[in-house]
Amino acid sequence: MKTLIIVAHPQLATSATQQFLQASAAPLTNVTWHALPAHLDLAAEQALLFGADRIVLQFPLYWYAAPAALKAWLDTVWQAHLVDAARGGRLRGKQLGLVVSLGQPAAAFQLGGAVGVSLSTLLAPYAALARRTGMTLLPPLPIAQFSYQTELAHQRLLIRYQQYLTAASQHFTDRQAWWQARLAQATPEQPALAEYVANQAEEYERLQDTLRELKAEDDG
Amino acid sequence: MKTLIIVAHPQLATSATQQFLQASAAPLTNVTWHALPAHLDLAAEQALLFGADRIVLQFPLYWYAAPAALKAWLDTVWQAHLVDAARGGRLRGKQLGLVVSLGQPAAAFQLGGAVGVSLSTLLAPYAALARRTGMTLLPPLPIAQFSYQTELAHQRLLIRYQQYLTAASQHFTDRQAWWQARLAQATPEQPALAEYVANQAEEYERLQDTLRELKAEDDG
Repeated sequence: MKTLIIVAHPQLATSATQQFLQASAAPLTNVTWHALPAHLDLAAEQALLFGADRIVLQFPLYWYAAPAALKAWLDTVWQAHLVDAARGGRLRGKQLGLVVSLGQPAAAFQLGGAVGVSLSTLLAPYAALARRTGMTLLPPLPIAQFSYQTELAHQRLLIRYQQYLTAASQHFTDRQAWWQARLAQATPEQPALAEYVANQAEEYERLQDTLRELKAEDDG
Repeated sequence: MKTLIIVAHPQLATSATQQFLQASAAPLTNVTWHALPAHLDLAAEQALLFGADRIVLQFPLYWYAAPAALKAWLDTVWQAHLVDAARGGRLRGKQLGLVVSLGQPAAAFQLGGAVGVSLSTLLAPYAALARRTGMTLLPPLPIAQFSYQTELAHQRLLIRYQQYLTAASQHFTDRQAWWQARLAQATPEQPALAEYVANQAEEYERLQDTLRELKAEDDG
C-alpha cells in the first residue's frame, strides 16, 4: 500500500508539529511526504495523487477549515472529469485520511465548547468529497495543542501517526498486527517482547471466540 | 447600514450568476461590491471589512467549500488579534451573510441526497467564525443551478438578494417594510399599489394581535 501525505502549512519550516510528523514518517517505507509547492505542476500532482492508495491531507485548522493552499490544490488538481465516481473516477476505492492540528483543546469542538461545533461537522466537506469520488474516508487524526503535550503524549502520537499512515485499518486487530510486524523488525534482539505481544494477540482472539460462542448460545 | 459583498469566484467575468447578482446589487445604495483581487492589500481589505455593518461572503461551492481565494482572504485579512471577540474584536455586533451558488440541486444537500450532507453542515465553519468574532450569522442565501432557473425564479432571486443585502433582517415584517419603502420610491405614479401593500401589512398586524389575544386567553 502506497501512502501519500499532502502537507499544507503556511509556516511549514517553523511548525513544531509538522517537523515532528515529518520525522515520524521518515523511517516508513511506501510513504511519500509531499509539502505543497507554491506553484502547482498539475501533471506531477495528479501523478502523485493517482499513484497512491491512501491519501492523507495534513493541515492546521485555520478559521475552522484547511488553509487556502490545500483548497487551491483541491480546486486545481481534483478535476471533476477525472475523479467523479459517477464518471469512473480515478480515486475510486482509495482511502482518504485527515491529520488535523488544532490550536484549541479537543474539548472546544463540541456543543457548549469554545468552538461550539464538532470537528466531524467542520470536516463534513471531506465526507462529501469522499462520497463523490468513491473513496473511503478514514476517521480523522486530530492533534490538539501539540506544543502543550507531554513527552509521553508525543511518543503515543508518533505511533498513532505511523499507524494512521501504514496500518491496514485503524481497527484494533490491524493495529495489533502492525505492532507485531514492527516489533519483529525493530527489536530482533528482544524476541521475548515480540512473543509477549503475539501471545496477547492470541489471547484476544480466544476471548473473541468465547464471546461469539456465548452469543450463539443466547441466540439458539 | 453599510453592506460589503466579498465576491470570490475564479471565473467571475464569465459567471452568469455573478453577473446577475452584480446587476441586482448595482442600484442599491450603501452596498459595496468587492471582487477579491489577485493580490490582497491588507490595509485596504481591513478598512473595507471594519467599515461595514453587514459582511456578505459570496462564492460558488467548489468541492463543498468556498474557493481558495476566499480562504486566502480570511486567513490573511481576519487577523485573530484584531477580530477575536474575546480580545475586543472589531467585528463584534456586525452581521455575517453567505450567498452561495450551487452546481447541484438544493435537494442534493440532505441525507440520502447526492451530497448526503446539508448546506448548513458544510457551512458550519462560518458559524464557528461568527461565534469567535461576536458576529451574527444570517441564514445563508443558496442559489442552486442558476442557469436552469426560470425567468420568474430569477426575478424572485433579484428581490431576495436585494433584501438579503439591505433589509434590516430577513424576518417577514422587515421584508415587508423593505417592500413598502421600495414601492413608495420606485412607483410614485402608482400610489394604489403602495396603499394596497400598506393595507396588507396592517391586516397582518391585526391578525398577529388577534393570535396573541387568543393565546393569552388560553394561558389565563
